[in-house]
Amino acid sequence: MSNQFKKEYIVVAQNASGRNMNVPLYRFIGEKPGPKVYIQSSIHGAEVQGNVVIYHLIQRLKQQPICGEVILVPNCNPVGTNIKAGEYTLGRFDPVNGTNWNRGYFYDESLIQEFAQSVQDDESVPQIKQRFRQQIKDILAEKLQESWGIGLAQRLNLKLQQLAFDADFVLDLHNGPVSTRHIYVPEYAQASATMFNIPHVILIPNKFAGALDEATFCPWWTLQTLLSDKRQKAVEFGVEAFTLEMGSQEVISFTDGEYDANSILSYLNAKGCLIESDIYPQTMRRVATYLKNYKVLYTQQGGMVEYLAKPGEMIKQGQPLAKLLNVDELDTPNATELILAQCDLIPILHFPSASILSGTQLYKCFTHYFEL
Amino acid sequence: MSNQFKKEYIVVAQNASGRNMNVPLYRFIGEKPGPKVYIQSSIHGAEVQGNVVIYHLIQRLKQQPICGEVILVPNCNPVGTNIKAGEYTLGRFDPVNGTNWNRGYFYDESLIQEFAQSVQDDESVPQIKQRFRQQIKDILAEKLQESWGIGLAQRLNLKLQQLAFDADFVLDLHNGPVSTRHIYVPEYAQASATMFNIPHVILIPNKFAGALDEATFCPWWTLQTLLSDKRQKAVEFGVEAFTLEMGSQEVISFTDGEYDANSILSYLNAKGCLIESDIYPQTMRRVATYLKNYKVLYTQQGGMVEYLAKPGEMIKQGQPLAKLLNVDELDTPNATELILAQCDLIPILHFPSASILSGTQLYKCFTHYFEL
Amino acid sequence: MSNQFKKEYIVVAQNASGRNMNVPLYRFIGEKPGPKVYIQSSIHGAEVQGNVVIYHLIQRLKQQPICGEVILVPNCNPVGTNIKAGEYTLGRFDPVNGTNWNRGYFYDESLIQEFAQSVQDDESVPQIKQRFRQQIKDILAEKLQESWGIGLAQRLNLKLQQLAFDADFVLDLHNGPVSTRHIYVPEYAQASATMFNIPHVILIPNKFAGALDEATFCPWWTLQTLLSDKRQKAVEFGVEAFTLEMGSQEVISFTDGEYDANSILSYLNAKGCLIESDIYPQTMRRVATYLKNYKVLYTQQGGMVEYLAKPGEMIKQGQPLAKLLNVDELDTPNATELILAQCDLIPILHFPSASILSGTQLYKCFTHYFEL
Amino acid sequence: MSNQFKKEYIVVAQNASGRNMNVPLYRFIGEKPGPKVYIQSSIHGAEVQGNVVIYHLIQRLKQQPICGEVILVPNCNPVGTNIKAGEYTLGRFDPVNGTNWNRGYFYDESLIQEFAQSVQDDESVPQIKQRFRQQIKDILAEKLQESWGIGLAQRLNLKLQQLAFDADFVLDLHNGPVSTRHIYVPEYAQASATMFNIPHVILIPNKFAGALDEATFCPWWTLQTLLSDKRQKAVEFGVEAFTLEMGSQEVISFTDGEYDANSILSYLNAKGCLIESDIYPQTMRRVATYLKNYKVLYTQQGGMVEYLAKPGEMIKQGQPLAKLLNVDELDTPNATELILAQCDLIPILHFPSASILSGTQLYKCFTHYFEL
Repeated sequence: MSNQFKKEYIVVAQNASGRNMNVPLYRFIGEKPGPKVYIQSSIHGAEVQGNVVIYHLIQRLKQQPICGEVILVPNCNPVGTNIKAGEYTLGRFDPVNGTNWNRGYFYDESLIQEFAQSVQDDESVPQIKQRFRQQIKDILAEKLQESWGIGLAQRLNLKLQQLAFDADFVLDLHNGPVSTRHIYVPEYAQASATMFNIPHVILIPNKFAGALDEATFCPWWTLQTLLSDKRQKAVEFGVEAFTLEMGSQEVISFTDGEYDANSILSYLNAKGCLIESDIYPQTMRRVATYLKNYKVLYTQQGGMVEYLAKPGEMIKQGQPLAKLLNVDELDTPNATELILAQCDLIPILHFPSASILSGTQLYKCFTHYFEL
Repeated sequence: MSNQFKKEYIVVAQNASGRNMNVPLYRFIGEKPGPKVYIQSSIHGAEVQGNVVIYHLIQRLKQQPICGEVILVPNCNPVGTNIKAGEYTLGRFDPVNGTNWNRGYFYDESLIQEFAQSVQDDESVPQIKQRFRQQIKDILAEKLQESWGIGLAQRLNLKLQQLAFDADFVLDLHNGPVSTRHIYVPEYAQASATMFNIPHVILIPNKFAGALDEATFCPWWTLQTLLSDKRQKAVEFGVEAFTLEMGSQEVISFTDGEYDANSILSYLNAKGCLIESDIYPQTMRRVATYLKNYKVLYTQQGGMVEYLAKPGEMIKQGQPLAKLLNVDELDTPNATELILAQCDLIPILHFPSASILSGTQLYKCFTHYFEL
Repeated sequence: MSNQFKKEYIVVAQNASGRNMNVPLYRFIGEKPGPKVYIQSSIHGAEVQGNVVIYHLIQRLKQQPICGEVILVPNCNPVGTNIKAGEYTLGRFDPVNGTNWNRGYFYDESLIQEFAQSVQDDESVPQIKQRFRQQIKDILAEKLQESWGIGLAQRLNLKLQQLAFDADFVLDLHNGPVSTRHIYVPEYAQASATMFNIPHVILIPNKFAGALDEATFCPWWTLQTLLSDKRQKAVEFGVEAFTLEMGSQEVISFTDGEYDANSILSYLNAKGCLIESDIYPQTMRRVATYLKNYKVLYTQQGGMVEYLAKPGEMIKQGQPLAKLLNVDELDTPNATELILAQCDLIPILHFPSASILSGTQLYKCFTHYFEL
Repeated sequence: MSNQFKKEYIVVAQNASGRNMNVPLYRFIGEKPGPKVYIQSSIHGAEVQGNVVIYHLIQRLKQQPICGEVILVPNCNPVGTNIKAGEYTLGRFDPVNGTNWNRGYFYDESLIQEFAQSVQDDESVPQIKQRFRQQIKDILAEKLQESWGIGLAQRLNLKLQQLAFDADFVLDLHNGPVSTRHIYVPEYAQASATMFNIPHVILIPNKFAGALDEATFCPWWTLQTLLSDKRQKAVEFGVEAFTLEMGSQEVISFTDGEYDANSILSYLNAKGCLIESDIYPQTMRRVATYLKNYKVLYTQQGGMVEYLAKPGEMIKQGQPLAKLLNVDELDTPNATELILAQCDLIPILHFPSASILSGTQLYKCFTHYFEL
């Protein structure tokens, strides 16, 4: 028994040379029906480790029978991947207008409320699911045809969302600047957090802030909440979506990619996507916090900084996070300054450059964290 | 009788050399009390004509007695002004993270609703105004002291908002890419549109979208709407705020700056800020549209483009706006393509480069426009 | 009688998505033998008018019989064309390392001297020409195969030079920042300057400074000088190469492109490339200067600038070129400063942004100019 | 006995806000006369470790008596330090025109030859040294006064060169992209290579290629060679200049900075600048190669790359340096490709991003290296 395999290209933009820019799409179709999985990587151009993860997933899925379908879209932003500014990749936003490449997905809460009202009492969960999915996909198709056109990032995002909204399990592979591995998990899917081999978990509420994971799970979570209320019993669609941060941007590691691929396969196995697989999540310490307790530490000063606290380390209140150098004060006691932890915390990522202006996101930290 | 004059500098950031970055503040104080005016320019670094306008305003206010106070802050973004990317100024957003320099102002609708409820029936309009102003300013001060810090653009914005929220009339001087002069006017202040010498007017609703004019007028408009409802009679605070687009970015003209300064003085005179001035708005054709009819035309294609329709021209449906060249098709009939107007419109601005990707904001256009 | 037409693509690079980047090549081959012509445009990505010129040339060459061959390579730098930094195109240099896209061509003077010594007394000019051409082309091919690899810009340049060095007449189409039309002409080919319809001519010496025109004519000029000395009579290869600056960067004009195409066809006709054509250069005023008198005016100050002198205007000593605004001095007599012409001059181009640091190339000017 | 200490600021540019940009200068003057030392850091804005080194040197020189004078200029490029392009610092070149910030120093070989001819037979070495120094400094001063102005990078460079050319020992502190510590040593000063604690040494010839070390030592080396010839005996000026590469750009480490400061103090002690110091170079393995054998490996392909060989490792011919991923081929045997060492080598630095275009400087490597 083996999977069917297809490879396609989707045109998502055209460059100034008048040439199409496309993204590769790798599709595995199992012999038996089952859930649909959608995995993309590198929507932010400098966040490239996910491409290695997808490479390993493809090698594995050539051997591993699945039920349902797995779609893999590596390097899903051909514009962002190819914008260099100096030696690094300026991949987080459109250099023309600053638009974050991960903020143009469609979401409209009022529309979900209307849809919830349209649901008949006797409509089954699969029927509702299929009808809702179709409605969103119709809107996406319509938006892509808008007669005045749409922006570059938005077109890219909607094209990808067309694929993602068709899926039951959506994984968006990212990287932090200098970062330990972490994952964004919707609060209602907290149980799935331990199906991955990822040590740091951010539990996020049902609030759309623009990213693909939210654009995917918020509609379903909102809808199931409304319908559960209406029907006075739990309605569940079983759709989940996550943003996985696979370490640091601007580097790839084939060895780490294999670990990451295993982590994802563990999740897919737990969700019934794999046939006769013995891949299970590792026993490991997993620490979580709620999004509101995932704090950004901004600098008050400009200068040059040594990052003393490493991503993933447990830091006690009062311990130093960073040491700042001020080149105008090298002969005075103000030459250096320690930046201390205001409370117990785990730095998850830090800024990737030693040179900072005031108001720089120095660290993002878990506070009030707990074990899962 | 003459005005008092003061010059100060406000620190808004610190750079990687550890040095303060500040903005100049020019303040004229009339002998008699009167309204407060706040005018800033170049929050977007490449939009520099406003600096020339403020130069002319300063020359005029040295001679022209005022009542109340006029604060002028040219070049209000010392970071954005000084970021070159190639020969041009990358001034619309923070190059680190893509944050638009004009989107970090504070606004919280729920807070206004709470405040409205706190208003006593016998509280006078000046009392309410003073108390509300103080409350917002307290919040701004508090946000600037946030123990985890705040972002660079947000700090800059809040520092400027501290000045702006103290004023009755706020003018934020911008430029479009390649652009004719136009102004954003809150719908409730439509009558003021004809007090400026600006031919194109966009009427905007009471909806905060991040800019300084909205951060200024939305709180007052919301509050006066709530209180008018409550008191069953019109409550008016007389606060107005506008974004003025003084032509194209990346160019300055001293002659045009004098015209623009006159336009602003006409408005200030109409609002009672000037003493014994005979500056009145010009008799001229002014065309307006509602924000929802101010349409962006995005390109479907990438290529090289000649902008045939000039900003300010009236274009009929079906007339050409632009002509596109595709370098891969120079020998075929697809070498060039005309982009036509979908309806009667006035292009207000267009993209400043001939080289475009698909999804570029080619033109912004007035549709369904009318004369004021 | 008509020309044969072919279209090809040449791979010049591969991007981070692992995809080939290629340039289109349009080739017209006449029924009769004759000189070879090579024309490229947009080696600097923001300099796009040449693409329109090539578009018009292609339309004309469909009708106009030629002898020999004309190769047209529009948009010859697919990397540079597609790098946006803000709304503009960062096309002059590789964003990774600052390498000018027009400085990687091959030139080696000692090699020409060696070749000159290898020439037999009885070797005919066509024989010498063919042998020298082959030798350079062999070196180019070898360099492209260098086992340690070569840089991105250099590979692009050598690939184009392979085409150019095969030609007798080479035209490299550029634009200035904000610029009037001008042309770089090797001193020995001064007679050809009046075959184009270009009002401003820079006469350049036999010194390689990195550009394609120099990489083309310097070897031939050097060789014919050496051989003329050796043989005690004029040896001429008839090879000419020019850089044509077709107005300002970042804009295209189809109307101007037709004028520019006519200008080039006049030259080609004068050189015997066209069959039975009646295209001749216009009678017009042409002003020239030597390269050493083509002066760059750098600013001593930073600030915002209005460009008072327009490209192409004749400016007398002491007349104002530009007016500078200093935002820190708006209340003092130092608010503005005039920058004056140090001698009689013609500004040919100026910087395209109003915001300048000290040390900016404000203007490039003809001094000690004369009529041709 | 203790040193005198002074702190100054030198204006090197003015920004678009019209404000001066300056560099700090820390000066220690010993009680006794002795050699002059000039140390600068961060001429390339992202190469910041040298600032930490200078911080440590200042702490040490507060205690350690010197003879002569030590001038320290950290963060010597206030423009380059403050240009962000994305999260990283675009510090190697002027973003306006691509000019490398370390290539605008003055050097003119013909002038040195003229000077050599002017030297009288009885002129003493100190006299020659003083007169030559003065002549170069006069030219630098003149160039800075050029009536048509000079470019931003050139002004910065000449201002720094005025300080450097006055010194006997010049150290220019840099960083590589991802790099091990290495040093550029002029061939004639090879003996000094072992006075530093730096494991990798590049021996460079007497050829000016634009950098500060060359601008400093080439004139003296050329002059002493000419005079030694003339006088038929060794003339030595004792001037040395080095570029020190203190590890990787975009990071600082206070601990490593202390090591680097020690390394520099060892050299200064060996050169007689320190009084009663017991700082001596470490016993360590030092490997050197000639500049011609310091090879750049360029990629032939674009894609994503894992850097397998670490800077400083000894790699044998045929061993893998890097592994490339091609996202369009993830299902085929072409998904990955190994890049192998063509000969025995030591990678000294590699490109800092995983995303590369073809023609990227992947590695710089020592070949044909030997122990010192």
